[in-house]
Amino acid sequence: MNFCSHCGADVALRVPEGDTLPRHICDRCGTIHYLNPKLVVGTVTEHEGRVLLCRRAIEPRHGFWTLPAGFMENGESTAEGAARETREEACAEVEARELFMLISVPHINQVHLMYRAHLLAPDIAPGEESLEVGWFGEHEIPWEALAFRTVEVTLRHYFADRRQGRFTLHCCDLRPHDGVIRA
Amino acid sequence: MNFCSHCGADVALRVPEGDTLPRHICDRCGTIHYLNPKLVVGTVTEHEGRVLLCRRAIEPRHGFWTLPAGFMENGESTAEGAARETREEACAEVEARELFMLISVPHINQVHLMYRAHLLAPDIAPGEESLEVGWFGEHEIPWEALAFRTVEVTLRHYFADRRQGRFTLHCCDLRPHDGVIRA
Repeated sequence: MNFCSHCGADVALRVPEGDTLPRHICDRCGTIHYLNPKLVVGTVTEHEGRVLLCRRAIEPRHGFWTLPAGFMENGESTAEGAARETREEACAEVEARELFMLISVPHINQVHLMYRAHLLAPDIAPGEESLEVGWFGEHEIPWEALAFRTVEVTLRHYFADRRQGRFTLHCCDLRPHDGVIRA
Repeated sequence: MNFCSHCGADVALRVPEGDTLPRHICDRCGTIHYLNPKLVVGTVTEHEGRVLLCRRAIEPRHGFWTLPAGFMENGESTAEGAARETREEACAEVEARELFMLISVPHINQVHLMYRAHLLAPDIAPGEESLEVGWFGEHEIPWEALAFRTVEVTLRHYFADRRQGRFTLHCCDLRPHDGVIRA
């Protein structure tokens, strides 16, 4: 951030009075610009024993497989955002029901919320950001071609819970040193 | 948003190619500025049967009572943020443990995550943003002087769960028409 988005003047990076962290401050109009983590919302949708995945048509990780997920938008709930992303990426109509994963990824300023979702209509198709979409059983998952660590962690918990016959909320933090697949 | 925070030029509000929502776009440097919901993280800390509340020294809702909570910062996990807010507002050292409430508040572009927390040291004191802090049993809660609907909803679920002897995750959306107390 170089300029004030409100008045267009230069901004300075310093700790405001009464605050503890440096912020981008506009000395002309007085606006303090806060930068906060972004929410990523998505779904694990199971149908006839298999899970819905999308192959990415965009960077980062073009060509790799992911669960349908993306940045939450203003004006929607977390569950609405998760269903919207599933519609946009896989043309699938779902209802996001139980929160299944809460993953903090502090080094990239993201928090991921993944829901278990119920398929409302049988049709799926690649959306604009997907090369292809498909249904995958546990032993068909392209583990080596997953786009993000968040996706791998979510799927591993999902199939482990399914084997135990009960799903619970899983919370975890992903740090840079945790593995080789990118967050 | 009136100006590009990257290059300082005017921004236009329109739907980018391949997108579905209007965004602030800089036609000089090409930056698309996305606005996303903010996360509010906080705690319900119980000690000897009573819950930690803070009376707000800042607007909005100056003088009203709240659970310790605030905007999540970049570079931290949700649980770290919840503990930090509790430290800042009530000078209380806690460990945020189980996620207890997920509340979407779409009309103000916020998502609240409230944790049940464990007190690590007995001392509490008002932080810079609090007039006073204190411990409240269920029948001592200043229900009519709570700052936000999110706080009331969280406390009502908390005491209901406690009476039943088991705590579970509660997820809800607060819409403008849901009640009289502000989100």
